[in-house]
Amino acid sequence: MEFQTKIGKSIPDKIYVHGYNLTEDLIGNITLADMAFLGAKHRKPTENESKMLNALLVAICEHGFTPSSISTRLTYLGAPESVQSAVAAGLLGAGTVYLGAMEYVAEMLQKAFQKYGEEYDIKELASIIINERQESGQQLPGFGHPVHKPEDPRTTKLFEISEQLGFNGKNSQLLKEIHRQFCEKKGKTITLNAVGAIGAIMADMEIDYRVVKSFAVASRAVGLVAHIAEEIEHGRKDSIGQQLFNYIEEHTEYQG
Amino acid sequence: MEFQTKIGKSIPDKIYVHGYNLTEDLIGNITLADMAFLGAKHRKPTENESKMLNALLVAICEHGFTPSSISTRLTYLGAPESVQSAVAAGLLGAGTVYLGAMEYVAEMLQKAFQKYGEEYDIKELASIIINERQESGQQLPGFGHPVHKPEDPRTTKLFEISEQLGFNGKNSQLLKEIHRQFCEKKGKTITLNAVGAIGAIMADMEIDYRVVKSFAVASRAVGLVAHIAEEIEHGRKDSIGQQLFNYIEEHTEYQG
Amino acid sequence: MEFQTKIGKSIPDKIYVHGYNLTEDLIGNITLADMAFLGAKHRKPTENESKMLNALLVAICEHGFTPSSISTRLTYLGAPESVQSAVAAGLLGAGTVYLGAMEYVAEMLQKAFQKYGEEYDIKELASIIINERQESGQQLPGFGHPVHKPEDPRTTKLFEISEQLGFNGKNSQLLKEIHRQFCEKKGKTITLNAVGAIGAIMADMEIDYRVVKSFAVASRAVGLVAHIAEEIEHGRKDSIGQQLFNYIEEHTEYQG
Amino acid sequence: MEFQTKIGKSIPDKIYVHGYNLTEDLIGNITLADMAFLGAKHRKPTENESKMLNALLVAICEHGFTPSSISTRLTYLGAPESVQSAVAAGLLGAGTVYLGAMEYVAEMLQKAFQKYGEEYDIKELASIIINERQESGQQLPGFGHPVHKPEDPRTTKLFEISEQLGFNGKNSQLLKEIHRQFCEKKGKTITLNAVGAIGAIMADMEIDYRVVKSFAVASRAVGLVAHIAEEIEHGRKDSIGQQLFNYIEEHTEYQG
Repeated sequence: MEFQTKIGKSIPDKIYVHGYNLTEDLIGNITLADMAFLGAKHRKPTENESKMLNALLVAICEHGFTPSSISTRLTYLGAPESVQSAVAAGLLGAGTVYLGAMEYVAEMLQKAFQKYGEEYDIKELASIIINERQESGQQLPGFGHPVHKPEDPRTTKLFEISEQLGFNGKNSQLLKEIHRQFCEKKGKTITLNAVGAIGAIMADMEIDYRVVKSFAVASRAVGLVAHIAEEIEHGRKDSIGQQLFNYIEEHTEYQG
Repeated sequence: MEFQTKIGKSIPDKIYVHGYNLTEDLIGNITLADMAFLGAKHRKPTENESKMLNALLVAICEHGFTPSSISTRLTYLGAPESVQSAVAAGLLGAGTVYLGAMEYVAEMLQKAFQKYGEEYDIKELASIIINERQESGQQLPGFGHPVHKPEDPRTTKLFEISEQLGFNGKNSQLLKEIHRQFCEKKGKTITLNAVGAIGAIMADMEIDYRVVKSFAVASRAVGLVAHIAEEIEHGRKDSIGQQLFNYIEEHTEYQG
Repeated sequence: MEFQTKIGKSIPDKIYVHGYNLTEDLIGNITLADMAFLGAKHRKPTENESKMLNALLVAICEHGFTPSSISTRLTYLGAPESVQSAVAAGLLGAGTVYLGAMEYVAEMLQKAFQKYGEEYDIKELASIIINERQESGQQLPGFGHPVHKPEDPRTTKLFEISEQLGFNGKNSQLLKEIHRQFCEKKGKTITLNAVGAIGAIMADMEIDYRVVKSFAVASRAVGLVAHIAEEIEHGRKDSIGQQLFNYIEEHTEYQG
Repeated sequence: MEFQTKIGKSIPDKIYVHGYNLTEDLIGNITLADMAFLGAKHRKPTENESKMLNALLVAICEHGFTPSSISTRLTYLGAPESVQSAVAAGLLGAGTVYLGAMEYVAEMLQKAFQKYGEEYDIKELASIIINERQESGQQLPGFGHPVHKPEDPRTTKLFEISEQLGFNGKNSQLLKEIHRQFCEKKGKTITLNAVGAIGAIMADMEIDYRVVKSFAVASRAVGLVAHIAEEIEHGRKDSIGQQLFNYIEEHTEYQG
């Protein structure tokens, strides 16, 4: 019995990763983000793919004080000896509510082309999707933002880059058309948010929707470094975690 | 009362991260790995710093089947709806045993220069550290590898790159000298492993040893994308997680 | 602004938890499992509720070598300094696949009574649920088991106890009737598994279905103590985690 | 090759756990906490052991709003579909800072008896330990509390119960003597905290210090049920997690 994998193999003087020699082909030649691409596609990205992917993951990396990054800081407060726990705790908050839409958008688009792609054009497809969702009571993912209204500046930038690098493919076009029709129906502009845009562009990079979210999670892990670093800089007593904890202690009302 | 942070701020049409405008200065201009640098140092890396950092994180990203990546696969088997849990579970195994040495090496070197840096040269410093560790019964971190003997190919490559890019500073020189003297004492070549080399180079990039490990953890998160992607490709029934589980079930002997 | 909570309050010489004095009313008077009940219902369980709850949680506590407990052991191998990480990693595998059904059963039953409870009797209700699920393509939760066929001995035991203690209420009766009709339809006996039985009994204990799974997760955390203890007893080299890791290393075939 | 375990085995109509028949010997006969005892000692606890253990774990179960329970609530806010993630995130904050002392106390006591137990009486042992710790610059674990001064009501209660049930053994006596001498030296009463008392009593129950903390972690998992339940009761918008998040958003000052 054998566990078969494309991931890697080590011998005393060489390490192979997805068919590449780690020291000859990868270290010094590709970026960290490209390792995720390599994992998902078993080949190095082209230069444009690498640029696009780095742009997407830089866009999604840092979200300031979110439930997720606050959990990281609080966990660091209780377990400073275990930085990996602080990062892990932060990732655990990246559930359906904040990051889920990236996967849902990619899924919606990829499945639409799989199911109807040969029969309908983009306009018709957009209309079909909007109607299907409405009938089944499902929300359209990727729309709306509490702060960035009527436009998410990341969306604008990312679509600009994807245009330049050749990734403004059918998935992005479909999402934009869904957005256009949806706003028309609503009679007002709803933000096409960054998470939505990223889902569409990743679909155009031919990344399977089921893997999409793991890219976002990895990017978040990179972003959480900043939060741990800032807690260390502030020092335990003045850390955000400790201050928050103090604030809660002073403002809790027991109703027992 | 205010929570003060350098991390970021969002207004409707702009996002600021560490003093930069996210869409103008960062997206499309820097790599994902640079976001971790930005978090730790509050400035964008230079081109050489970015190259060096990407090389380090690519080197540490993928480790094949380790307890950590197997936990990710097993967790994915039980909770495929929660990719972030699979990544988090994998990170939790990145404790003192496998990744700790990166931080310990950086700590050993940075503290040595802080304490004795002005009085002694590299040779003397190396000797002092070896003796201090020996007396207190503490191991020297960063040495030894189960597979890569007598040389870790990643160490060779990374020191080559750090030489080219201008990061072969005093910390790397001190670690190499400790290594030289240590092997001399032992009368044989002990591997200076990649984790050790990375700790030294990060120290030469002036990254605080307390933050060093969080970079490694973030890199692992990126590496775990490949493991989730491969489980998805194999399909549930033929996934490594499922196969492993089957194997265990068939080979367990109950001694109740 | 105040954070209002029923959970607890500490003053120098007293601790209040859900309206009780911790040292006078709880320590020495109630069991650990009762603390979860207290959390969900803001009152101490009656003697029968405590017996029932302990029986349910004992039944679900230990599952031998599952993806979840193996993750705990592998995490312990990499991070023995952080026992909480090992437990957390184990819990993360308790997703929809293995434990989800407990919540889904409770939800199915509680919602059925909420929606149709006044109009139909148990037989009619069971038939409605089976039909609704069939039409919408949703599986019936709580049925089937890979080992325990045609009967799950825990189900038999738990329903026996719930009968004795007075918890064989409408939810359990409805689940049993769904089971009866479902088997009749299939023309063979499908196991009513323990997870299903527990979901029904917890519904009869009037525990909200949205809280049900957190009881199971807590019980699993208790069960994981045994796995950490056994790894410690075996010693690192002979631990299951290490043996498994060795086996994988020897049986991996790289297809790069 | 075989994985040998005392934990359990399932056959179609029976489940064995640590040598017991789960449905005949355990379900309905023992409490949830006893399952942890069974895991650590491979035998059911006596009635007194069960009472003692439940008292200890009830005492440590709930800590109100701590970094740990707040992480659970914040994680639930981001990933309500994954209750196990919320519990896991909460456990990850149970590191060296808040719970570590339980293990350190048990370790200090068990090692003291192992090393010096035959030569010295309790008074001498206490003095040796205090001096050793002072010389090596190590803190004495188990002393001090921010709120419960000069006495921790849980300590008083737990020692009272351990006295009644026959667990006031040499470990507890040694800790009390260390406490007496330590306060005498300091010239004032320092709290002997609950975590310290529990470490000593668990040592007297002959639970290996390396397993002690996993009991505490399991107990916390049970305690976190209350926090998830309360978030559900409050409803998303009024949940503590959401309120806290709002507060932080409004009170963050960006210094970019």
